[in-house]
Amino acid sequence: MFYAIDILGTIAFSISGVLVALSKRMDPFGILIIAFVTAVGGGTLRDVLIGDTPVSWMNNMTYTYVIIISTVFAVVFRKRLEYLRKSLLLFDTIGIGLYTVVGVEKGISAGLNPIICVALGTISACFGGVIRDILCNDIPVIFRKEIYATACIVGGFSYFIIKKLPIEIDIAFALAGVIVILIRLLAIKFKISLPSLYRD
Amino acid sequence: MFYAIDILGTIAFSISGVLVALSKRMDPFGILIIAFVTAVGGGTLRDVLIGDTPVSWMNNMTYTYVIIISTVFAVVFRKRLEYLRKSLLLFDTIGIGLYTVVGVEKGISAGLNPIICVALGTISACFGGVIRDILCNDIPVIFRKEIYATACIVGGFSYFIIKKLPIEIDIAFALAGVIVILIRLLAIKFKISLPSLYRD
Amino acid sequence: MFYAIDILGTIAFSISGVLVALSKRMDPFGILIIAFVTAVGGGTLRDVLIGDTPVSWMNNMTYTYVIIISTVFAVVFRKRLEYLRKSLLLFDTIGIGLYTVVGVEKGISAGLNPIICVALGTISACFGGVIRDILCNDIPVIFRKEIYATACIVGGFSYFIIKKLPIEIDIAFALAGVIVILIRLLAIKFKISLPSLYRD
Repeated sequence: MFYAIDILGTIAFSISGVLVALSKRMDPFGILIIAFVTAVGGGTLRDVLIGDTPVSWMNNMTYTYVIIISTVFAVVFRKRLEYLRKSLLLFDTIGIGLYTVVGVEKGISAGLNPIICVALGTISACFGGVIRDILCNDIPVIFRKEIYATACIVGGFSYFIIKKLPIEIDIAFALAGVIVILIRLLAIKFKISLPSLYRD
Repeated sequence: MFYAIDILGTIAFSISGVLVALSKRMDPFGILIIAFVTAVGGGTLRDVLIGDTPVSWMNNMTYTYVIIISTVFAVVFRKRLEYLRKSLLLFDTIGIGLYTVVGVEKGISAGLNPIICVALGTISACFGGVIRDILCNDIPVIFRKEIYATACIVGGFSYFIIKKLPIEIDIAFALAGVIVILIRLLAIKFKISLPSLYRD
Repeated sequence: MFYAIDILGTIAFSISGVLVALSKRMDPFGILIIAFVTAVGGGTLRDVLIGDTPVSWMNNMTYTYVIIISTVFAVVFRKRLEYLRKSLLLFDTIGIGLYTVVGVEKGISAGLNPIICVALGTISACFGGVIRDILCNDIPVIFRKEIYATACIVGGFSYFIIKKLPIEIDIAFALAGVIVILIRLLAIKFKISLPSLYRD
């Protein structure tokens, strides 16, 4: 089941990459790269930082195939993607919930401090979008106006608490992911965001 | 022979980096870094992704020396580089042909899927320029308007086909490189590029 | 003693990151990430390039705690940081002196060529700021107008000469750091910078 959710997240991330690349009038190669980076960039950075190489998408071709198919689909139907906006937001949110917990688990396996594990979870979920925005010459959107990383951080820490409960690991995993998803959806529904700070 | 061609590619990449850095009015240190990143950035990213560290330019000083000399040369003769424009384009094209096949071979040695190997070849050849453009605060030029990565992708896949022919590996290597070079030169000559796509 | 200096450098780098992030009107999460990247980005890139993973801040929590506390402090007192400007510049300069020699030593331990070791020292000291500027969508400031990297390069090479003198390694380490610091402070005092070059 987690595997299917992972695929949904990859699809949503790829399509969000395609949309940004289209807004920059890129060519098909550029669009594919941006879709790829959005979908796997966070996990790639996580793997490079902990030294788990070759990075995961090189050993599991599913990601590559899903990204290519999603990109072709999004390019062909690019004028009709509005209809999918709500589904995409939901997939994206499910994706970050899952990616967060996967990243935290990787940190635990590497024997790292819980704070570092949560950082790795947040990197897995959020830095694909950061790299996408850098390649597109924008200031990363999550640094400016969304409850996005905050949801990952809270969900990541909650995973450590939930894991201590007398429940199965799969359930703990799902619960922490659901916490990320709920925080993000509530923030969107009630238009809550972190304030931007400045000096004068 | 391949070794000498590798040097030509490194020279061309370095000088292309110097030209971009000069257009941004950087100081000598900035110029050297941009030249360095343009020349070895793609191979560095490839090595980091597959975990082949320390990355290759740290173990073979030839690259560093060639880049430093090329940079000094290009800065000193910066007002006369126009005369070299055609030679530089040719060197650059030879460089990406060679870098592509080197990257593909590295992927094969690491036991990776052919699609991933071609991705590694394309990263080796193209991502030095991508990192250069990011450091210079531009949207990477190859995402927008050149048959550049496309030539690497086609050449990379052709290498797998050519390798099955009853010929020596060195010849297969050279043939795949020549395919990359031909596609790129023909695209330049006939002004062929991928269309840029947008949504409305 | 070096350890305490290391902390001072981390504090200065974090606060410099906060200042840049505030000028871009980021939210608290963005500010923390920019502070973090400014403080540990250079060492992280160094560790990734030589394959020393998990990267160092994952194994020593002191950095993380110092960065978080510095960031909270800088955000709370953001309107009064002017009073600290001179101290911060001094801490920052001490920080790059120390980071340079640490990076050079890491290269020596990895058995790399002295030129590569100096490059690693310079990367350790300077590339946190480079990554900060990229994330903030600016051309990296050290590529354009400061004697900053140059001080690291000179100090890095001097370390190899000083190490041959009949003195203790700790003293050699400190002397090389002091050379970096002196060059930078003199350059600031006398407003010396590398000229920016251009073509016409």
